[in-house]
Amino acid sequence: MLIAEPLQKAIDELSKLPGIGKKSAQRLALHILKSNNEDVSLLVNSLNDLKHLLKFCSECFNISVEDQCEICKSSKRDKSLICIVEEASDVIAIEKTNEYNGLYHVLGGVLNPLSGINADKLHIKELVVRVKNKEIKEIILALNPDSEGDATSLYLTRLLKDFPVKVTRIARGLPIGGDLEFADAATIGRAFIGRISL
Amino acid sequence: MLIAEPLQKAIDELSKLPGIGKKSAQRLALHILKSNNEDVSLLVNSLNDLKHLLKFCSECFNISVEDQCEICKSSKRDKSLICIVEEASDVIAIEKTNEYNGLYHVLGGVLNPLSGINADKLHIKELVVRVKNKEIKEIILALNPDSEGDATSLYLTRLLKDFPVKVTRIARGLPIGGDLEFADAATIGRAFIGRISL
Repeated sequence: MLIAEPLQKAIDELSKLPGIGKKSAQRLALHILKSNNEDVSLLVNSLNDLKHLLKFCSECFNISVEDQCEICKSSKRDKSLICIVEEASDVIAIEKTNEYNGLYHVLGGVLNPLSGINADKLHIKELVVRVKNKEIKEIILALNPDSEGDATSLYLTRLLKDFPVKVTRIARGLPIGGDLEFADAATIGRAFIGRISL
Repeated sequence: MLIAEPLQKAIDELSKLPGIGKKSAQRLALHILKSNNEDVSLLVNSLNDLKHLLKFCSECFNISVEDQCEICKSSKRDKSLICIVEEASDVIAIEKTNEYNGLYHVLGGVLNPLSGINADKLHIKELVVRVKNKEIKEIILALNPDSEGDATSLYLTRLLKDFPVKVTRIARGLPIGGDLEFADAATIGRAFIGRISL
């Protein structure tokens, strides 16, 4: 025997998580083994609750405790604005800025034909339903600035052309606190193209 | 609301694990949320089993399913040899080499007076009992080559001086596959001191 079976099983399960390799999984498993019973119960129960208490909002596919998420239900949000993001984690990131007061629409990924992710696998038809039935004035595309994100933005722009809705994309340029000297050429190039008059 | 409560709780619990910060915890939690029920059950059950099926060997404090671990129970191991290590993870690392066929003794840490870890907090008295009652010929110190490990090795060497047992320490020098040019001065120095005749 090298590793006791329950330990090996826990290592195998932990190493399935993103960013956790075999070595980190072993470290985590041994840490959990050494923790007291209460702490392990807290961890295990929180993971169980995570899966069983949460679902995805029926409207925007954000994480939600109820059928409709807090943002969609809120009377304080601007319901004529929809910000389109890839994942629910992007909603958290944008909410942290306190700069945006509209609604969201979580696509659940981006178009990636090589991995078999086409428009049917994303929440695109639900977006079209929202744009058709609600009074939406502006759609803000906030997908990641990579090739898949750009392709998906282009796809959505074409798709939404037929609706009386303004489609915008969040700005690209130098990150705040960044250094021009160390920025990559593509970012600097985009910053020049996207320059604004003062 | 920024983050739904069950999600926030899971993030808090996951970020208590070693090497997992707030951002990684959020990534893991969102991954678990998106995984199917079966996978989450497998993970949660493996963590529960880890805590409830495993204990520490009453003899050597290695991880064990039963009261005595597989290594202590085995008739194939050389019972006159004890290798002293800090943690159960070190036993796994040494077992992987297939170079050692003796028994182990897991200290559960190293002496660190600044953090309040003195000899009473480690499994040192149990080691003395083993050395007294069993026919041990050699104790091999395999603690980490840092100041706490060295201090603990020194402490154990002095403690075991009164017993008819040989005390050795595993070799220090250049790691296999390492490059002399990039090795630190302390390692090269130790490699010279520890040179052997061919």
